[in-house]
Amino acid sequence: MMEEENNSTSGATQLFSLFAHPAGHSLSPLMHNTSFQHYQMNAKYLAFDLQPEQLESAVTAMRTFKFGGANLSMPFKHQVIPLLDHITPRAKLLNSVNVIVNHNGELTGDSVDGEGFFKQLANQNVTIVNETMTIFGAGGAGLSIIQAATEQHLKQIFVFKRRNQSFGQVDQQLKQIESQGATQIRLLDYANEAMMIQAIQASTIVVNATNLGMGDYNSQLPAPPGVLQYLTPAQTVCDVIYAPLETKFLAIARQQGCQTFNGLGMLIYQGALSFKQWTHQAMPIEIVKNAIQLQLTESRK
Amino acid sequence: MMEEENNSTSGATQLFSLFAHPAGHSLSPLMHNTSFQHYQMNAKYLAFDLQPEQLESAVTAMRTFKFGGANLSMPFKHQVIPLLDHITPRAKLLNSVNVIVNHNGELTGDSVDGEGFFKQLANQNVTIVNETMTIFGAGGAGLSIIQAATEQHLKQIFVFKRRNQSFGQVDQQLKQIESQGATQIRLLDYANEAMMIQAIQASTIVVNATNLGMGDYNSQLPAPPGVLQYLTPAQTVCDVIYAPLETKFLAIARQQGCQTFNGLGMLIYQGALSFKQWTHQAMPIEIVKNAIQLQLTESRK
Repeated sequence: MMEEENNSTSGATQLFSLFAHPAGHSLSPLMHNTSFQHYQMNAKYLAFDLQPEQLESAVTAMRTFKFGGANLSMPFKHQVIPLLDHITPRAKLLNSVNVIVNHNGELTGDSVDGEGFFKQLANQNVTIVNETMTIFGAGGAGLSIIQAATEQHLKQIFVFKRRNQSFGQVDQQLKQIESQGATQIRLLDYANEAMMIQAIQASTIVVNATNLGMGDYNSQLPAPPGVLQYLTPAQTVCDVIYAPLETKFLAIARQQGCQTFNGLGMLIYQGALSFKQWTHQAMPIEIVKNAIQLQLTESRK
Repeated sequence: MMEEENNSTSGATQLFSLFAHPAGHSLSPLMHNTSFQHYQMNAKYLAFDLQPEQLESAVTAMRTFKFGGANLSMPFKHQVIPLLDHITPRAKLLNSVNVIVNHNGELTGDSVDGEGFFKQLANQNVTIVNETMTIFGAGGAGLSIIQAATEQHLKQIFVFKRRNQSFGQVDQQLKQIESQGATQIRLLDYANEAMMIQAIQASTIVVNATNLGMGDYNSQLPAPPGVLQYLTPAQTVCDVIYAPLETKFLAIARQQGCQTFNGLGMLIYQGALSFKQWTHQAMPIEIVKNAIQLQLTESRK
């Protein structure tokens, strides 16, 4: 009791932060502060809403104030790289950093979204090794899942992406990712529905990593209904979106009998991986899940 | 309850800070965090131990992270001035800033130590207006008390200072302070014991603003026993030192029947003035005093 009182009033609290824009609705502060409280750690996670030109001073401040670490969200995942001392091989492959660890003043950037994605599946006993996955979208979230899939030893990945100006660049990036592992990666045109049906039929894991299903796009699907009718109860279907908790895509998959996962699991497990890197402790997942549930219920009132 | 839970886990906590070196033993985090908790404010006061070359990035970070404000301690009270947007007339006179207020990104520096000193005396019904004060030492603490004394309309101040290399500069600074008010200020040589006796006999308030009585100097007195024997029960005797809580100087004054004040009051009331500037709320003085008492008792165990 005395110790807790001292903790909450002492000035020696270690800071962790999110750098994002916007930052107001992130669930990361809730996840990490709930975990710090659980372990009675004298630490605090804060969300800072930064302008792009403020990122450099924010990273300098991490050093000045000896932050334990930080998470990065859009649009800073790429912009932060030259400001760090080291980045991990996977962060380099993805050209993206979502967690920084401050180890005695040396800042190392890593990318743990994709590993988080597979951690949640593994925890629900979904078979991953040697499986085939179809993924819609190859933006930041999609690439991180694809890269992690190669580390998780999936057999094959079908990636569907619109044939827009970034198609060639993504193709190059996927070839680089593919060269690091034994997983076969095929980049395919989003417009190729016949191929999409074949891919889904060959896959046990199907993932939406586009923003189709959230916000202004919440009535849209990442694949046409004529494709999604091929989903079967043998498949695991995931969405990286967690608002809404069930996208139209996941609802259809559920109706087809699939096991479904929304984006909360990926969010929580990437948080757990950040927390582990910072504190060497396991995030109390169930407690964090309950806190998030409560928060989402409260905010809907 | 729910709100408190949200407060403690949300990422929207407003930060306040102390920039100092060393910073570990400051009581300011305890004072302000106790007060934030009292009002259930989603705010946190942290002490950062900075190297001189880090001050600039710390002040930049105050802007980036939208700190509500900061306190400064040695050696940053002077160094911070060029980094601010505005300083108050008294901070300019003293060439020293101990509190920064961030008002929509504009940083204003002020110096409230001296005002805090007199706030505690006023709260204990010590008469100030038109009184005469003797003060030993004209360093940062001494000057801030002297400057505040002119604003509190004391009649006359006798300042005793060693005739060292800074004597002439302090003399200039005192003349400038004197020119702003109606209080007469006389700078006198520390070695002049006869004058010291006269000054004390003419004063109702006697203050030690030297470091004689603390740390390595804890067996020393700011004035010779032959001078201090002239203290009478009609006088109020103050020390800016609070560790120990009763210096040898205050013990003698107490034995002479004087009302005595250690440095805790000045510390708490300058904190209250900072808190007021930041939050527009009154610091809960009694609660803060109790928390400090408890902390000092704990740390002595």
